[in-house]
Parts: sequence; structure tokens; C-alpha cells
Amino acid sequence: MHSPSVAPPAVTPSVIVGSAIALIEERASTNRFDPTRGVTEAEITDLIRLATRAPTAYNLQNWRFIAVRSAERKAVLRALAYDQAKVTEAAVTIIVCGQRPDADRLPDRLRTFVDSGHMPVAMADAWTRSARAQYADPQTARDEAVRSASLGAATLMHAAAALGLASGPMVGFDAAGVARAFDLTEDEVPVMLLAVGHAAPGNWPQKPRRPVTELLTIA
Amino acid sequence: MHSPSVAPPAVTPSVIVGSAIALIEERASTNRFDPTRGVTEAEITDLIRLATRAPTAYNLQNWRFIAVRSAERKAVLRALAYDQAKVTEAAVTIIVCGQRPDADRLPDRLRTFVDSGHMPVAMADAWTRSARAQYADPQTARDEAVRSASLGAATLMHAAAALGLASGPMVGFDAAGVARAFDLTEDEVPVMLLAVGHAAPGNWPQKPRRPVTELLTIA
Repeated sequence: MHSPSVAPPAVTPSVIVGSAIALIEERASTNRFDPTRGVTEAEITDLIRLATRAPTAYNLQNWRFIAVRSAERKAVLRALAYDQAKVTEAAVTIIVCGQRPDADRLPDRLRTFVDSGHMPVAMADAWTRSARAQYADPQTARDEAVRSASLGAATLMHAAAALGLASGPMVGFDAAGVARAFDLTEDEVPVMLLAVGHAAPGNWPQKPRRPVTELLTIA
Repeated sequence: MHSPSVAPPAVTPSVIVGSAIALIEERASTNRFDPTRGVTEAEITDLIRLATRAPTAYNLQNWRFIAVRSAERKAVLRALAYDQAKVTEAAVTIIVCGQRPDADRLPDRLRTFVDSGHMPVAMADAWTRSARAQYADPQTARDEAVRSASLGAATLMHAAAALGLASGPMVGFDAAGVARAFDLTEDEVPVMLLAVGHAAPGNWPQKPRRPVTELLTIA
């Protein structure tokens, strides 16, 4: 699974395993942020670079991220998110957008993989034809926008935690208003707002989870 | 963000940060699995326990995971997934299902958080009313099923990587056929199939990603 060109980590595998699991186990949705602590443009870029390591169908990468950091644009977004304070108090609130897939963009997104000799050109052509047929159905296209953006959002939350930042996801907002105010295209769906920054005191712990036996079937 | 009750890890923070980031950076979608190596029921349970640490709107936890591990059921699933070999060659293929939210279940899913004194009972009631209103719209309800399942699926991929396992997501399958063959309810949407197991030689590296500048706007 790991590329052999990646340098081995400087710690033993058991340490790696333990810490990544702890990160998943301990992440919690943060509501209270320290409004005095910002993040740099380099930190935002790093977060999005990591978020986009998430997989997408056909490697479509059908997403866009709008990092709302200025006081003025945060205020606009907060008003569209039922006045949730974390939109302005977090260092940045990211609008995670999924895009209805456009198969015509796929050859470009697979080109470097074809050029490097990994994917035969005939396979890239077949994927493009298959994507065109699959997303002709509007519900399937919307599902893919929501799915890709959500895979990216979850990876972004884990990346934030790994960088020592807290995150708070929101799905309660005026989607049409956000689309207008932030110039989303017709093909873009704002799937989630994600507040990212430094946690303030007073946050809830992770909410209790259902027992695994309730939601897992082994067939 | 982290609960103070969690024991501190036995390694320095910089090591934790580095390894979790490496895990996100190096995860790749696996297509070739070693069919001779299985996973235990305990490993499957652990994977799903970790996957369900992902957040859901209102803490709905509107998901179900069907871990298809028997040769007979894998063969049924493979036929419904355009005969993709990884469905049967991976140790287990997990059907990640999202559920259209049922607000009537919310009081039960928030109860322990209310009982522990974190959430006022009036707030749990308000969340339940809000969820009922929000998901009356069928598209919003379907979006939530797809979003929750995708957040869980991404977390499951990272959990698998942390446990030394490879994973291969699939969205190309006969959703109606899967729903029938695996007894999904009317409210359940099969959002993804995720093959999990031990990688065989010959997998592709991670596919190239678009430059961050193409998909990030800082506002």
C-alpha cells in the first residue's frame, strides 16, 4: 500500500500504529475556539493538501475548498449558518464543496498517471466513458459530489488533529445562500462547513457512540 | 479537543504528529489483495468501532456496516459489483450503508450524553425537533445518509491503514441489487463497498493529485 520510494519513518511501527489510532479515537467536534489565535496561509494550504489525499471515484477529485479567513467574509458566512459563533471564532471556516462530476475533465486528471506508465491510455479512455455514462443520472452525480466532499472533509478533520488543530463540522446552513455569496458554480454543492482553529476551554468531550454490536453485521 | 481522561501517549507529540500525517499522505486505494490472509472478527469489530468515531449531524450515527467475509456471500457481492476481483480476494468487503435520518431515534442516541450532564435535556429536545424539520425534505435526508456513511468510510480507511491493513473503495456496483441481496431497509443507502485486507504485490501507488492552488480559494 505504501510507495517504496517513501523514506521509512524514524519511529518503530508499533508507535506509528498507536498514535494514529489515538488520533481517530480522540478527535471530537469542537464548538468553542480561541478567537485570538489564527492559522497561516501555509497551514491552510497544508491542510487542504492533506485533505485531498482522500480517494475519489475514478480519481475525479471533484471538490473545491473555500477557506474563509477574513473578518468580513466570516461575518457573511456566519449569518448564513444560523449565527453559529464558531464560524467567526475559529481561525478559519472552510466551505467544503463537492462538484457534480464532469467526465470531460477526467483525461486531464489521469494524464500524469498515464504519462508515468502506471495506467494504460486505453484504460483512461474506458474510465472516462464509464464516468460519462454513470453520472448522466442527476441523483448519482449529486451523490458523488456529496461523497467526495465528505471523504475529503473527514480526512481534513484528521489532518487538522494531526497538526494540533481542532475542528467543528456544520451541516446546518443556508446552502443556496452560501452558493450565492461565495460564487459557487451550478455544479458545486456546499456539503459541509468546517471550522478549524485552536480550541478554547469548555468544549464537550466526544459524544457517546452506539455499541458496535448494534450497527455491525458479519455475513 | 482531547479528553483529559485519556492517558498521555508514550511518545513525544512531534512523533505523533509526524506519523499520523504520514498515514494520511501514504494511504492509497488498493486493488490487489492477498487472498490467503484473513482478518479476525475482533479486527473487524475494532475497525468499525474506530470508523464510528467519525462525526455525524446531531450525533445521529445513521449508519450500518455489513462485513462480508464468507466465501458464499462474497461471491454474491462480487457478482453485484461488476465482478471486481478485490471483493472476494480481500479478507473482508464492507458494505458501508447510510441511513435516512429518523429523528425519533435521536433522543435515545443523545440519552447518555444528557444523563452524564453534558447536554441539557431541553437542548436534546430542540435538536430532535430541528432534525425532524430538516430531514422532512427527501433530498436532504438522502444527502445526510451519503454524508454520514462517507465520513465513516474515510475514517475506516485511515483506521485500516493504522492497523496495517490495506483498503480499496468501490462505488461501481448495483445498489438496488446489493440492497435486496443483503436485506437493507427502505431507509438504507449502500454508499460504498470497501475491500479491506492484506495487500498483494503489484498495486499502483497513490494516483497523482491536482495542485492545491487549483482547488483552494482563501477568502
